[in-house]
Amino acid sequence: MNIPANNPSLKSWLEVAPASDFPIQNIPFGVFSVEEDDLVIGTRIGDFAISLTALNDLGFFKDIDFDDNVLYDETLNAFISEGKEVWRAIRNRISEIFEANNPKLRDDAKSRELTIFNVNEVNVELPVFIGDYTDFYSSREHATNVGMMFRDPANALLPNWLHLPVGYHGRSSTIVPSGVPVNRPLGQSLPKGETQPVFGPSKRVDFELETAFITADANVMGDRVSVDDAESHMFGMVLLNDWSARDIQAWEYVPLGPFLAKNFGSSISCWVVTMDALEPFRCASPSQEDPKPLPYLQQKGDHSFDINLEVIIQPEDKEGKTVCKSNFKYMYWTMAQQLAHHTVNGCLVSSGDLMGSGTISGPTKDSFGSMLELSWGGQNPIEMPDGSTRTFIEDYDTVIMKGYCEKDGVRIGFGDVSSQLLPAVPLDN
Amino acid sequence: MNIPANNPSLKSWLEVAPASDFPIQNIPFGVFSVEEDDLVIGTRIGDFAISLTALNDLGFFKDIDFDDNVLYDETLNAFISEGKEVWRAIRNRISEIFEANNPKLRDDAKSRELTIFNVNEVNVELPVFIGDYTDFYSSREHATNVGMMFRDPANALLPNWLHLPVGYHGRSSTIVPSGVPVNRPLGQSLPKGETQPVFGPSKRVDFELETAFITADANVMGDRVSVDDAESHMFGMVLLNDWSARDIQAWEYVPLGPFLAKNFGSSISCWVVTMDALEPFRCASPSQEDPKPLPYLQQKGDHSFDINLEVIIQPEDKEGKTVCKSNFKYMYWTMAQQLAHHTVNGCLVSSGDLMGSGTISGPTKDSFGSMLELSWGGQNPIEMPDGSTRTFIEDYDTVIMKGYCEKDGVRIGFGDVSSQLLPAVPLDN
Repeated sequence: MNIPANNPSLKSWLEVAPASDFPIQNIPFGVFSVEEDDLVIGTRIGDFAISLTALNDLGFFKDIDFDDNVLYDETLNAFISEGKEVWRAIRNRISEIFEANNPKLRDDAKSRELTIFNVNEVNVELPVFIGDYTDFYSSREHATNVGMMFRDPANALLPNWLHLPVGYHGRSSTIVPSGVPVNRPLGQSLPKGETQPVFGPSKRVDFELETAFITADANVMGDRVSVDDAESHMFGMVLLNDWSARDIQAWEYVPLGPFLAKNFGSSISCWVVTMDALEPFRCASPSQEDPKPLPYLQQKGDHSFDINLEVIIQPEDKEGKTVCKSNFKYMYWTMAQQLAHHTVNGCLVSSGDLMGSGTISGPTKDSFGSMLELSWGGQNPIEMPDGSTRTFIEDYDTVIMKGYCEKDGVRIGFGDVSSQLLPAVPLDN
Repeated sequence: MNIPANNPSLKSWLEVAPASDFPIQNIPFGVFSVEEDDLVIGTRIGDFAISLTALNDLGFFKDIDFDDNVLYDETLNAFISEGKEVWRAIRNRISEIFEANNPKLRDDAKSRELTIFNVNEVNVELPVFIGDYTDFYSSREHATNVGMMFRDPANALLPNWLHLPVGYHGRSSTIVPSGVPVNRPLGQSLPKGETQPVFGPSKRVDFELETAFITADANVMGDRVSVDDAESHMFGMVLLNDWSARDIQAWEYVPLGPFLAKNFGSSISCWVVTMDALEPFRCASPSQEDPKPLPYLQQKGDHSFDINLEVIIQPEDKEGKTVCKSNFKYMYWTMAQQLAHHTVNGCLVSSGDLMGSGTISGPTKDSFGSMLELSWGGQNPIEMPDGSTRTFIEDYDTVIMKGYCEKDGVRIGFGDVSSQLLPAVPLDN
């Protein structure tokens, strides 16, 4: 596949720091506002937020066949509904506009002023209105680790796990953009050895290192998406911190799954990295020969992506620590399999739906994607640079997740998803 | 509480059949379209759909203090956001307009023509945009029955069940209005005694008899709704058929809960019966003394509603049969407890969110709210009038649910939620 915007030799006339997640080869999509102005559709190069709304006003997209009203919305949903050819054409055009040798915008100070903003001076918001949010559970290592701790070490993986990408519905209303703090939840839990639950602030607030893909309009209700066609309905990816309260979860989750343990907040990174930008980093996923999945889930070729992931716990006013280094390529079930499975019963998937990967744990102890696994249920505290320890997340800690791909001297990153845990709000408040 | 529109002696100048669900004391809210015209906000009296948009154009609400733009939307969400005082004022005003002795609209043929339509000549659609859908599991009889069949008859009720209203997130995208058919889903299931799953059309498609309440903007993220305040954030109720594929469910539901077994379709009735209209039917719910719930769930007074419920299986071109008669008052956990629990961790609940009750089963065998229970896992087939039997729902059967309250000669009903099960769509389609 030849995607001009992916050319590793491209340089931009905008300054891009060498370690930036956002070289001209990335060109993610997002929405932002400048001061008190309305939200605009945008992209990012280096530390510059660029208004696509303004570029459209200036006529830069006028020969591209699409409904340009979608660039005046406050979310990407309508733009995503225009389809993959349009996303690709717009991204390739943005690449041309900012390519080092293109003078048109570069040498037009007045147009630049309408279009380009310092990213630190804008408010970057949720990129899409999320109609429905699904979270999968597709890391074999994570499911095994959790099964060992919560259930039976000898039969850690449940019988269905290798046959289907287990998933469940999450709550859309509390998905927040990077930067928004989350409060420690109150809830019920069952103290060890007790039979009566207690109520209070969760004592085991955890992160879950995940990615998520954002879908296009994939089907109509009753119809389905084949595994071979699934990737064409994916717009792009973000990082996801699926905040979890382990003590609440352990008590509430049978038989209908996690509920209040999850829906107090989920944080995502705000710049959606397109599947086109990730294409050079396509790679194999783990073998699925034993057992082979049912035919509707069988895939040939490479359908994972080599995305380096990292989690940092940053206490307030103290030195932080990287507690996990993982990689998306460890995931057993691919995103295409997740989407094919999700729709095989006719379930409707629409533009802006969010599909979380599930916690991404790798094979080594430093690649586990949650404190539950890293501290092994609280048994092995992690030492912080100041000498304090963590089994779970403490009040005022900020959890920062980073993700990037790297190849041929090009680094395509997601920016951070960063959010601080604030203390529980007392019940009488 | 004195709600003028609830006066049992009121009569309307519109004709209302004696057994109608929609006397002048009901005045539910919904949305409908006439032929190809835009959707309008409406109410229903007898077999007449009434445009509130048109009534507003004619000045009937002009002295009520609210943003009347909300009556020009295509869903009730913005109207609901106006708050309980506004819903009440509008409902009371509608009652005045249609009261037998009020000549203003009654004697104005031209205005009547703009306002009043035969309900059979309009398209009634989903009343709200459902941002998030939660389904609870609050019938003790249902949870016990399912626990006996799926898990352990000796310990049917799981340890958490009497301490919290168990709930989980559902899928909003496939909630459809009454009248829209649903296809039998394809999916994986594990045949009895086997270790490898098979793929194909579900063989155990079931209904679940539920009600649901539609919320107002209840809180901001991080904040919570107390159990005493919860009812003021409920707009009204509808009937819900939570279609379920039992064979898919049994295989997929551990450990994260039902997913594809539920999200192929959920059907709701379209006229939202307000909590004000239900007020005369308030009644006690089952005692919660053993165990007493934790303080944040404790309530005094009556917080259930005496709503008669009924399920009919209607084969195509054949006589139908009532297979279940139940009542909402059997539910162990109240709607106020559900909403207080849902938000106790700070989860955001907004205008138009839908909260399902869970299957409503009563104490007797003919009051069980699903075929799973009525046929006891398929062991006791139900005989139909034509001599055929049902353990689960057959292709082309229509499932019809009805609900109504009755007191002092006034019947307040929900209309039907009716939907036909169509055959599975083959995979290569």
